[in-house]
Amino acid sequence: MHPDRFSYSAENCSIHRSLDVVGERWTLLVLREAFYGVRRFEDFVRMLGCPRDILSTRLHTLVDEGILKREPYREPGSRVRNEYRLTDKGLELFPALLALMQWGDRWRADPGGPPVQLTHRDCGEPLEMIMSCGGGHGPLTVRDVAAEPGPGARKVA
Amino acid sequence: MHPDRFSYSAENCSIHRSLDVVGERWTLLVLREAFYGVRRFEDFVRMLGCPRDILSTRLHTLVDEGILKREPYREPGSRVRNEYRLTDKGLELFPALLALMQWGDRWRADPGGPPVQLTHRDCGEPLEMIMSCGGGHGPLTVRDVAAEPGPGARKVA
Repeated sequence: MHPDRFSYSAENCSIHRSLDVVGERWTLLVLREAFYGVRRFEDFVRMLGCPRDILSTRLHTLVDEGILKREPYREPGSRVRNEYRLTDKGLELFPALLALMQWGDRWRADPGGPPVQLTHRDCGEPLEMIMSCGGGHGPLTVRDVAAEPGPGARKVA
Repeated sequence: MHPDRFSYSAENCSIHRSLDVVGERWTLLVLREAFYGVRRFEDFVRMLGCPRDILSTRLHTLVDEGILKREPYREPGSRVRNEYRLTDKGLELFPALLALMQWGDRWRADPGGPPVQLTHRDCGEPLEMIMSCGGGHGPLTVRDVAAEPGPGARKVA
């Protein structure tokens, strides 16, 4: 798909750059729960069954990267704690999780079917992700796609 | 987004299931190069700078999972070797990589811009990924999405 791939550096690849931040299993699962509306440390633990120290590290990283933000709350009789909410930068990771979910639904679900159904809130129809182009063509498949050096491409010697 | 999240098991989650197979950094980078058209072991090494034993393990897993398939080839004067090509199951991972790329392009690219531009082969316009629904509404955002228990949902006691 990419002509002349070997003439360009892969070092500044945007997939690579995304994986530097979210390319770790627990991180993506934390984000999954955040999309489902989970906000509190104990609730993440409950849904993920994740070791507390790992969860703490992942939340810290996601806050540092501007993907989650902390918001203080206080239950009666308790000290102030933080909730974790998705920022705009975090919300924009939804298509990546959706794409992984759709692939898993199709290729790895139990015989009974997918455990979660995502729908359009207003009409109740199932969500779909479609590839199209700026010229209004679509749905496209991977075979319709061409890759070219972008403005930030780096030639290798 | 998911009402009553705590009443359902996360164990059969399709994101989780996908990550069991592709939720490792090198695996996704191997797939990236496969989408760009790379097929041979030495070419993967060249583009990824990945340790050979790790690459070998990842390719093996991807073949076992039916995401890549081996096809023998023979250069003059050499022994028969294998190329690695995406299966249909593998090709369907493209949206997941595209979503990660688009997020990286937007939030993590160098000031010069993204290193790769994906376009519609026929018209040359940039590729877009759009969320829509079976009712024909779209483009939708994450705020338009509702999550409900699917047919394979498992209640927890």
